Amino acid sequence: MTENARVAVVGVGNNTSALVQGINFYRRTGSLVGIHRPQLAGLSVGDIDVVAAFALSDGKVGKDLHEAIFAPPNNFPRLDAHRPESRRPGSSGGGSPGAEAGLAPSGVVVQRGLVDSAGIPRMAHAIEGAEVLLYSAPSGRPETARAYAEAALIAGAAFINTTSDSVAREPSLLRRFEEAGLPLIGDDLTSQFGTSVLHNTLLRLLEERGLTLISSYQVNLGGTEDFRNLVETPNTKHQSKVNALGTDKVQIAPLGYLPHLKSQKIAHLNIEAQGWGETEVSLDVRLKVHDPSGGAGVNIDLIRLAATALRDGRGGYPAEAAVHLKSPPGTAV
Amino acid sequence: MTENARVAVVGVGNNTSALVQGINFYRRTGSLVGIHRPQLAGLSVGDIDVVAAFALSDGKVGKDLHEAIFAPPNNFPRLDAHRPESRRPGSSGGGSPGAEAGLAPSGVVVQRGLVDSAGIPRMAHAIEGAEVLLYSAPSGRPETARAYAEAALIAGAAFINTTSDSVAREPSLLRRFEEAGLPLIGDDLTSQFGTSVLHNTLLRLLEERGLTLISSYQVNLGGTEDFRNLVETPNTKHQSKVNALGTDKVQIAPLGYLPHLKSQKIAHLNIEAQGWGETEVSLDVRLKVHDPSGGAGVNIDLIRLAATALRDGRGGYPAEAAVHLKSPPGTAV
Amino acid sequence: MTENARVAVVGVGNNTSALVQGINFYRRTGSLVGIHRPQLAGLSVGDIDVVAAFALSDGKVGKDLHEAIFAPPNNFPRLDAHRPESRRPGSSGGGSPGAEAGLAPSGVVVQRGLVDSAGIPRMAHAIEGAEVLLYSAPSGRPETARAYAEAALIAGAAFINTTSDSVAREPSLLRRFEEAGLPLIGDDLTSQFGTSVLHNTLLRLLEERGLTLISSYQVNLGGTEDFRNLVETPNTKHQSKVNALGTDKVQIAPLGYLPHLKSQKIAHLNIEAQGWGETEVSLDVRLKVHDPSGGAGVNIDLIRLAATALRDGRGGYPAEAAVHLKSPPGTAV
Amino acid sequence: MTENARVAVVGVGNNTSALVQGINFYRRTGSLVGIHRPQLAGLSVGDIDVVAAFALSDGKVGKDLHEAIFAPPNNFPRLDAHRPESRRPGSSGGGSPGAEAGLAPSGVVVQRGLVDSAGIPRMAHAIEGAEVLLYSAPSGRPETARAYAEAALIAGAAFINTTSDSVAREPSLLRRFEEAGLPLIGDDLTSQFGTSVLHNTLLRLLEERGLTLISSYQVNLGGTEDFRNLVETPNTKHQSKVNALGTDKVQIAPLGYLPHLKSQKIAHLNIEAQGWGETEVSLDVRLKVHDPSGGAGVNIDLIRLAATALRDGRGGYPAEAAVHLKSPPGTAV
Repeated sequence: MTENARVAVVGVGNNTSALVQGINFYRRTGSLVGIHRPQLAGLSVGDIDVVAAFALSDGKVGKDLHEAIFAPPNNFPRLDAHRPESRRPGSSGGGSPGAEAGLAPSGVVVQRGLVDSAGIPRMAHAIEGAEVLLYSAPSGRPETARAYAEAALIAGAAFINTTSDSVAREPSLLRRFEEAGLPLIGDDLTSQFGTSVLHNTLLRLLEERGLTLISSYQVNLGGTEDFRNLVETPNTKHQSKVNALGTDKVQIAPLGYLPHLKSQKIAHLNIEAQGWGETEVSLDVRLKVHDPSGGAGVNIDLIRLAATALRDGRGGYPAEAAVHLKSPPGTAV
Repeated sequence: MTENARVAVVGVGNNTSALVQGINFYRRTGSLVGIHRPQLAGLSVGDIDVVAAFALSDGKVGKDLHEAIFAPPNNFPRLDAHRPESRRPGSSGGGSPGAEAGLAPSGVVVQRGLVDSAGIPRMAHAIEGAEVLLYSAPSGRPETARAYAEAALIAGAAFINTTSDSVAREPSLLRRFEEAGLPLIGDDLTSQFGTSVLHNTLLRLLEERGLTLISSYQVNLGGTEDFRNLVETPNTKHQSKVNALGTDKVQIAPLGYLPHLKSQKIAHLNIEAQGWGETEVSLDVRLKVHDPSGGAGVNIDLIRLAATALRDGRGGYPAEAAVHLKSPPGTAV
Repeated sequence: MTENARVAVVGVGNNTSALVQGINFYRRTGSLVGIHRPQLAGLSVGDIDVVAAFALSDGKVGKDLHEAIFAPPNNFPRLDAHRPESRRPGSSGGGSPGAEAGLAPSGVVVQRGLVDSAGIPRMAHAIEGAEVLLYSAPSGRPETARAYAEAALIAGAAFINTTSDSVAREPSLLRRFEEAGLPLIGDDLTSQFGTSVLHNTLLRLLEERGLTLISSYQVNLGGTEDFRNLVETPNTKHQSKVNALGTDKVQIAPLGYLPHLKSQKIAHLNIEAQGWGETEVSLDVRLKVHDPSGGAGVNIDLIRLAATALRDGRGGYPAEAAVHLKSPPGTAV
Repeated sequence: MTENARVAVVGVGNNTSALVQGINFYRRTGSLVGIHRPQLAGLSVGDIDVVAAFALSDGKVGKDLHEAIFAPPNNFPRLDAHRPESRRPGSSGGGSPGAEAGLAPSGVVVQRGLVDSAGIPRMAHAIEGAEVLLYSAPSGRPETARAYAEAALIAGAAFINTTSDSVAREPSLLRRFEEAGLPLIGDDLTSQFGTSVLHNTLLRLLEERGLTLISSYQVNLGGTEDFRNLVETPNTKHQSKVNALGTDKVQIAPLGYLPHLKSQKIAHLNIEAQGWGETEVSLDVRLKVHDPSGGAGVNIDLIRLAATALRDGRGGYPAEAAVHLKSPPGTAV
């Protein structure tokens, strides 16, 4: 029987909440709903142990992971809310938010994360024993991202960069992971079911059917802290979205941070095309999805993939990861 | 150089209007916009000659084909309308509607079509010289459809059934076409870009990404005579749509005949699914398309495919046609 | 202090479920959310006592009203589901569905309703003491509707016809209610927030702003038994919808019964217009609403209005009701 | 018979193009389609003479107005395009863009506009004889807007500020117009049919029907130069939109400048509410409109209103204008 994958997580935001809650949810309920790959190299979605977690905010550091994932500004919902029948007996009496959500304390206390490269040795020590270091902090701090990658190199762990910051696209860094026999996965997660994958699929369909694309747009609205960061600080997200679509006929409207959406993302897509006889074809789509679920649903595969590659001694960028990334090695930074 | 394909057309409705106008439009403009396969077995979309046409309505029989395609209840627009610069010099003085649309008389006079099997020998004679008999009449008259197929068998022509009536799904008929070395293609066209192909693509995408389909619906609205027939008479269209989707989780609302839409079709699709952690994903789509363009854009491929198979002596159902049909041989009637 | 209004209800379907659950919900929580008129003639929404209820199905007759409202094919959700904190202490232990929903038994046992006019005297007796007889059965049985109205006349109760069947539009019947000093309200409820009111508002806005309506359509999809009845049996609903819109430029697609929607209704509206310089304006709307809530939210006003008119001795059709009805007296049947 | 209103126009952008083309279109065709008020104080929409026009760009200054309105970056379509039958005989031979659009030269040559307050006296001289000075330049230059208002004061003309810059909201300026007997209208046009008026109407409907607003958003996308300016420069547009909605429950996403939309504006609105029993009501709307048409359709009323007030000696802010403005005197700057 395959051993559980051991993962350390950087960032205790909504994506980590969705990941941690989901692992517990699927372990407890046995549900297979909404899972991309029930088994991957012998690992089911419940076969993952989070062994360490890092954050920067005072509201999270020092708390049990199962409590910290509900601290503001996190706003991903409690996965148990709509499945009251699955609550563990006796768990309803607990006073802490984690307990209310059917989560016993994890035993993992959130530690303070890196702020600069001076902390790399400490971090390398702190993640000892982890097979995978999942970097799931907000986009927009490329130096920090790369400092964590350095710590993973020292500790002998695989590294996954889910942000749009350039890590796996750094050729020298990728080479060092290859040489160390450590997997390096990134950059920028394609959500399990997000705007990019949907938009791409529709554009490909058009092409397959012989229609000619005239114009297209995409609007993304969301209410998470991630969205706020993306809106307020200059970042590489826009370029990464353009990389993902591979055409310049699509126009991407500025991201809209709408707090009341909480962890939901809403996207409006429009496609104008021409078919036989140059007659008009138009397509309008509205997608509503929990953004962190889309991230967790892919992270669960990347973690298993990274752990497996590590165990097999395959260093560098694993080709199987490509389908899950917007900006893999070789694309524009 | 490949010779033009010679086709006889049954039904002078909107689809035939789109087909005939489109062939002329592309010949004249050289445009490649909206074409699925610019070349198919050496034939471009302009390399098709309509050599005979059949209809039942007094408003069409006896008229030149280029005039009949604009007779009511046809309501497909004139393809030249938005490209005035491409009008042939001198054509604007003509008084007939065809001439106004930039179409010189075709020289093909619309003949009266079949009403029962007694007319089969006459029909076989009338289509002599045609390589392909394209059956593009309204759905809902299976006996008539099969009578035309009999005429094709006698005349040595390939037969294409674009309606949802059962023709290619009749095993004995298919066998006779095989034995005669004549191609038989059907049943029920998948539009170049219609509701079925879009709905299917989205459902497949969901599955690929590991989402679980909860429910889905499809509403189709249109203003053509075809739509009116489908709404008012019992027919095999609904079953054919279910065949095309291949799941019983999708509910198809009754067709809506809305005359003001003319030849436009509007479809509303909804998909409710669950992703990671059983969180909700919802997708709403509105598609607007000229229905007859979608038909013509596929007929142009089927005609070239049928003519090529005939010339190659390949009888029966050509596998390459499958992608264009909702109810190929072997599916439910 | 104003005495509670005493109402007898015909039909124990979703609308009655929404009404009965809602009265209890608002009594218990004190919430004012979603209420049109918190006070109407001294009566708040909780000041209504259901004193009798009638149904025809074996699954409902003989049961306590608070149990019967959850019997299939009813599919309106339990209003407590999303407000667990408001459950009465001790109520969770009950085994019956009503108890689970936080509803103690009502003490009202559902009686068998009328099937023909022979039962009118029995019915008149059964509703004795009720001030208002609310007719909330499925549309499509005009004779039955009028038989209940006869019973109300005998028993001295106000009568409310929420269906599209012609009752208040019958001049002779209306005259008899007037003469008896009994209010008669109908026909066909305009939902608190339904397709008709929304469509009307948008069309009026267009007109106010000087735009010219070119075309418009409306599609209604739902999953209740009401929807199924409307789809499957010929009825006066379509005419009533046309009455409500007051223009023939709007096309109403056939109703779609989609069981998975349960008590939700989804409407797609489109409006095409022209503004300054005849340039195009287009408007697409999707409305999602719980159909029975829309009915209950209006019934709660009509009941209070009817009880007040009765108490004031005002017979016949009360003008204040007009805003809530699609086909008031004087419109087409 | 009422004399034509004489108007001087500042800004030769899309709105002016729509206004000037529209006046000609309605004069020529006699159409009444899309007109808010066919007659206003004896003036029809064709009874307006543009007597002077001002711009800053070299591509417009010095040209005939009927040519300048088609100079880039203007992208409002030619109103004749879809009405070829109404072209004046003989006009098709002309070589200039204006002539192609069926517009004979206007005789008005576009003059260079103000850049600072030093030019006020020159401007006052240049607009002599105009009854109304319509300020239709891009938003975001409040000082320039007020300099034009000073010129109007000197020249004895009414002033209309269509931008979101604060002019009519300046109490001291308003007082001086009052004292001079000159009308002052502003600030920020409510389009004939735009996002604000639609959003407002839907929110008011909700309230009228007793629903409780939970959240709402608005996304605006457009391709005009106006949109680009609004996106790229800090301005008072956002506050003006909030003024127009009068609630803080509505979130307004950042404007999206999508060049391919040209003069079309697309808005996505969402409204989430609760009805009876706190059940969910949701409403999604997509509006597509030519932005400059919406402006011109209101300017045509404001001009007639201003001219009439001037002729009647009514100075200051005319109350009848309020319905057309987002930020009238007294609202936040």
